[in-house]
Amino acid sequence: MTITLTEEPLAPTRLLRAVENELEAFLSGKRARAADGTTGEPAAALADFVLRGGKRVRPLMCLCGWAAARAGRPAPTPDAPPVEGARPTDQAPPEVVRAAASLELFHAFALIHDDVMDNSDTRRGAPSLHRLLASRSGRTTDAADERFGRCAALLLGDLAFSWADEALHTAGLPPRRLAAVLRIQDVMREELMAGQYLDLVAGRSAAADLGTALTATRLKTAAYTFQRPLQVGVALAGGDAALHEACGAYGLPLGEAFQLRDDLLGVFGDPAATGKPVGDDIREGRNTVLVALAVARADRTQRAVLSRTLGRPDIGEADIERVRRVLVDTGAREETERMITERLHKALDAVRGALFPDDVRDLLAAFADQAARRDR
Amino acid sequence: MTITLTEEPLAPTRLLRAVENELEAFLSGKRARAADGTTGEPAAALADFVLRGGKRVRPLMCLCGWAAARAGRPAPTPDAPPVEGARPTDQAPPEVVRAAASLELFHAFALIHDDVMDNSDTRRGAPSLHRLLASRSGRTTDAADERFGRCAALLLGDLAFSWADEALHTAGLPPRRLAAVLRIQDVMREELMAGQYLDLVAGRSAAADLGTALTATRLKTAAYTFQRPLQVGVALAGGDAALHEACGAYGLPLGEAFQLRDDLLGVFGDPAATGKPVGDDIREGRNTVLVALAVARADRTQRAVLSRTLGRPDIGEADIERVRRVLVDTGAREETERMITERLHKALDAVRGALFPDDVRDLLAAFADQAARRDR
Repeated sequence: MTITLTEEPLAPTRLLRAVENELEAFLSGKRARAADGTTGEPAAALADFVLRGGKRVRPLMCLCGWAAARAGRPAPTPDAPPVEGARPTDQAPPEVVRAAASLELFHAFALIHDDVMDNSDTRRGAPSLHRLLASRSGRTTDAADERFGRCAALLLGDLAFSWADEALHTAGLPPRRLAAVLRIQDVMREELMAGQYLDLVAGRSAAADLGTALTATRLKTAAYTFQRPLQVGVALAGGDAALHEACGAYGLPLGEAFQLRDDLLGVFGDPAATGKPVGDDIREGRNTVLVALAVARADRTQRAVLSRTLGRPDIGEADIERVRRVLVDTGAREETERMITERLHKALDAVRGALFPDDVRDLLAAFADQAARRDR
Repeated sequence: MTITLTEEPLAPTRLLRAVENELEAFLSGKRARAADGTTGEPAAALADFVLRGGKRVRPLMCLCGWAAARAGRPAPTPDAPPVEGARPTDQAPPEVVRAAASLELFHAFALIHDDVMDNSDTRRGAPSLHRLLASRSGRTTDAADERFGRCAALLLGDLAFSWADEALHTAGLPPRRLAAVLRIQDVMREELMAGQYLDLVAGRSAAADLGTALTATRLKTAAYTFQRPLQVGVALAGGDAALHEACGAYGLPLGEAFQLRDDLLGVFGDPAATGKPVGDDIREGRNTVLVALAVARADRTQRAVLSRTLGRPDIGEADIERVRRVLVDTGAREETERMITERLHKALDAVRGALFPDDVRDLLAAFADQAARRDR
């Protein structure tokens, strides 16, 4: 049920500096306003978590969607809404930057709750929020501290969800445009939670299932990380249905390729490069497409290897190596690579259409290539 | 950190039947749409939880706020927005009923997460959602089932939060009116989470603190349950600032009185009437105003009784009786009763002003009286 996050910034720094500044400003405002003592500590903890880093893929996609939708518009007249102002792609107006930043606040919610559910120790190269909150006094934690950490993180996740809404609602968008963005976000959030739920249920049963793994990947990575944030950007500029569709045609296959690459790196990657221990997906028994492919193709001996290793937290490197062998021998690894390539090509075809202006197309194409081929 | 919910319907049935129907319709829609298998199970579980019952105080307050704001308006003309149609108080237009119902979906989120945090076994006279989800197969639960139940309930709570937003966004409100409602809800949600966080932190320390207890009561009960839902209703009808303020002048003291009564019933109430085991606040070490008053007034002997009982899950009836004695002898019980009466009078004064039409005033006054004086 892990939400994927690599440490390497794939995004052009310039485009995202404004988002970072907006996040800082919003969260500083929350800290400052907390003089009544009710939200000071939560605001500080959330600010540290959000500003700790992250690739900011969703804000980037949002800004790309906005730039695509506003391209080719006539220059702004004094009474045109500022959201459609003809500025350079990398200088979106404040309300658009704010909306992009709100996606990152929502993502903080998603990561915090994901870590509580998975009982993960680390996130973005530092202790997960529930671990930090459990041990904030610096003492060794006991069971009561652990419980406090989980409850506090659950509440701070809820608060990040609320603040994401507030940041968007107070962005200064024209009410009709805000309403259009909200409708896309409602769908996006339901997709994320449905994907997470599928993953959770799949993790409870022993059987890996390819269809479920693909659906969960589509919902919780492809739609949540790529398609919907792009479409939020399109809606921010009042883009048309064809562009919304093109964003799906690019974002969904790219998101699937991104997640499939992640699944491969989780088993075959170099921990020194990925920053993540190898084999955790196996130990946690995650129903990845890679594993589901292997289970479907395994003979009796290979199946035995899988069933005595998947979901066993205590297996060592030798067992992981045996699983790797099965993933290679069944062709699951090769098939996953083939699926990535196929999806990358679909995504690239989609941005090569006439709907994307040159600068956005180049950025999205480069991003897709990197996301699908990365080794970390 | 308990969110209070008594089983007795304080609300006029007629006003709330439309809300109930709206909740059923929305959740049925979600179940029906779940043919792709991704949200069917979550939708069914949430529908069962939401439709299981509850007083629907927040939707009721919302409808009262709406009725107060639209009273005295001229009869609707064909081009007037439907939200201001001059219908009888008990027949709010569909988009207003939908907005009121969305408050109940949000409340489902709050209750589900509250029960996960408190590890509560029951809610609304049935197993809490995380317990139900842990044991849905009917088997005895083991540690993995318990974990599944907590994770699934956390996700379903998040989904209820999203669906509350969606229900409001798709109510059909004019965009400017929707934007006004969203701003009140943003404040309300932050207040709830800040109150919950205060409660959580207070529960971690041994010292009871009156100021913190009063602030938490104001945020998580008075604002969340009374003031803000009333103001959402006012915003739905485009009411003015004076009415928003009057809703606070009624809702905040009433909400405090409501919570103080609840604190008293939790220690001195009849479990057969309240449906709740007596003394749980003591066993859980909740930082209630009642206990904080006692701690502040206790002599050395009384303090010793409190410190060896508060937050001890294993204490029995004899210990609870000793705590009751301290609460009486220190005057904490009497002072709490005095605070309730004082707040009830403030709330009644506020609705007796000229801003509330007769039918709304009578309903709010009767409601306040019942909420402050109830024995269950």
